[in-house]
Amino acid sequence: MTGFPVPTMPAPPVGVVGLGQLGGSLAAALVRAGRPVSGWDTDPQAREAAAARGVRITRDLSGVVVLAVPLPAMATALDGLTVDPDATVTDVGSVKSPVLGTVGAAFGSRFVGGHPMCGTEHSGHEAVDPDLFDGARWAVCLEPDTDLSRWLRVTEVALDAGAEVVPLTAAEHDDAVAAVSHVPHLLAAALAAAAGEAGPLALALAAGSFRDATRVAGSEPAFVTAMVEGNAAPTAEALARVQAQLGRPWPELVTAGHAVATRPTAQRSVRAPLDRAALLALGRAGGVVTRRLAAFVEGRLPQEG
Amino acid sequence: MTGFPVPTMPAPPVGVVGLGQLGGSLAAALVRAGRPVSGWDTDPQAREAAAARGVRITRDLSGVVVLAVPLPAMATALDGLTVDPDATVTDVGSVKSPVLGTVGAAFGSRFVGGHPMCGTEHSGHEAVDPDLFDGARWAVCLEPDTDLSRWLRVTEVALDAGAEVVPLTAAEHDDAVAAVSHVPHLLAAALAAAAGEAGPLALALAAGSFRDATRVAGSEPAFVTAMVEGNAAPTAEALARVQAQLGRPWPELVTAGHAVATRPTAQRSVRAPLDRAALLALGRAGGVVTRRLAAFVEGRLPQEG
Repeated sequence: MTGFPVPTMPAPPVGVVGLGQLGGSLAAALVRAGRPVSGWDTDPQAREAAAARGVRITRDLSGVVVLAVPLPAMATALDGLTVDPDATVTDVGSVKSPVLGTVGAAFGSRFVGGHPMCGTEHSGHEAVDPDLFDGARWAVCLEPDTDLSRWLRVTEVALDAGAEVVPLTAAEHDDAVAAVSHVPHLLAAALAAAAGEAGPLALALAAGSFRDATRVAGSEPAFVTAMVEGNAAPTAEALARVQAQLGRPWPELVTAGHAVATRPTAQRSVRAPLDRAALLALGRAGGVVTRRLAAFVEGRLPQEG
Repeated sequence: MTGFPVPTMPAPPVGVVGLGQLGGSLAAALVRAGRPVSGWDTDPQAREAAAARGVRITRDLSGVVVLAVPLPAMATALDGLTVDPDATVTDVGSVKSPVLGTVGAAFGSRFVGGHPMCGTEHSGHEAVDPDLFDGARWAVCLEPDTDLSRWLRVTEVALDAGAEVVPLTAAEHDDAVAAVSHVPHLLAAALAAAAGEAGPLALALAAGSFRDATRVAGSEPAFVTAMVEGNAAPTAEALARVQAQLGRPWPELVTAGHAVATRPTAQRSVRAPLDRAALLALGRAGGVVTRRLAAFVEGRLPQEG
């Protein structure tokens, strides 16, 4: 055991399955970071666009294999493709427990679930942006039986793409994204639909607060539905918490929301050992991994108030 | 009656009471548009900042007098100031019926309620921006007893500041802003407060959808509370409509929200006579006034689908 940073192992190649907005952007970011990237998409246009960005197009995948397909396609994403028996498999799906149940069951300890918290209301290879992950949070799941060295391989991919990694379990992930992503999508839809009922005059008066609050209602409905229905129980619980908040007296509600929205964001640097419990504790405290060292990770934790 | 545009009357001076974000920005925008602007604020720093932007600081107001103070201060905004007996009085408060009941009762047909749909989560004279109104919608109220020529004076102020004018009644305004502004503020607060309950891990994962959905929760709580409590009945009704939407099956809800959020925004130009009924019909159809002519206004209406 040493406290000195030493170089990590050479980075393995990355194989990206699905070259739409997320997969294509990841492939482009990793090519830029100097990593060898191969990939596949069922759409010839997406393959061509990726090839033009330096991605080797192949059905034979090895190293870290990233499933970057919509949730409903996850279980069949590898049909017709060959995956090296030693490859680590990860995904970028917005819900983690169902993927753990399907892809995780197929690959056992070789599977590490992941979820980059980015993407826009756009989709498809036309929306590829190599900067998409810059400074984004990327959840990388650490279950009791996850192989820690494979967790690190996936973490390195996220870091190389420009993201910061949040270590957590699939269940913690699904509860958290229900609160900060899936419920916001439902609220945006409900707000837009209700304003539509209110009529054209209301929509003509809609200003910044409304546009911000409904922006994600412009996302492809099939993706959103797959996301919320794929995380139904945590989303229903998080929605119930929002509805309970809406039942509070308004001055109290407004003050409580303001306190969270304006919470100070000062950060302090931390170093955590490469140890399951320490990594999960970092995640639960709101911390992120920013760099991998030999027997440690460097990260940041929110400053205590 | 002529169909040809002819020059309007010389624009009267504008007196702005309250030189914070909205009032200070309005004064700055009107100075830039070449209108004589005077103003007052109880805060010497706000007066100094406005004077530096070309606003004449005085307690004697005439022409179009704009009350740009928070709702709770509206009824006493003119204490210690002198208002010319022929002045037209307007305001920029975010709720219109209560202001009609107080300021409107004091000034009778000389009062025309207004509300620019802009502003940010910031406030105070440090947040002044002469571009704040560019392309914004500005509600200008037309009640059965509103003097149409005074309505036009207020409309010209809004147009000169760079905004587009929505003609409507105070009741229509309050229903519409409940749906597109006040309920979004409550939803943002509820979402932020519920995510705060979910803990630091959830907040660490918060991405664009959450930040957009909670941005307005950063607004000053006293302003927000005054706004929603000053429009309590329409806000409660609009919130009930959102809650009814949240009770729909999720695929149906997501599809309905998407349809409103992605509604085509093509516009067609229209010319409306300067007539109460025609102006209110324009507003109800989602239209806006963009220019004042002699016996007409020019505007835009959403293209029919």
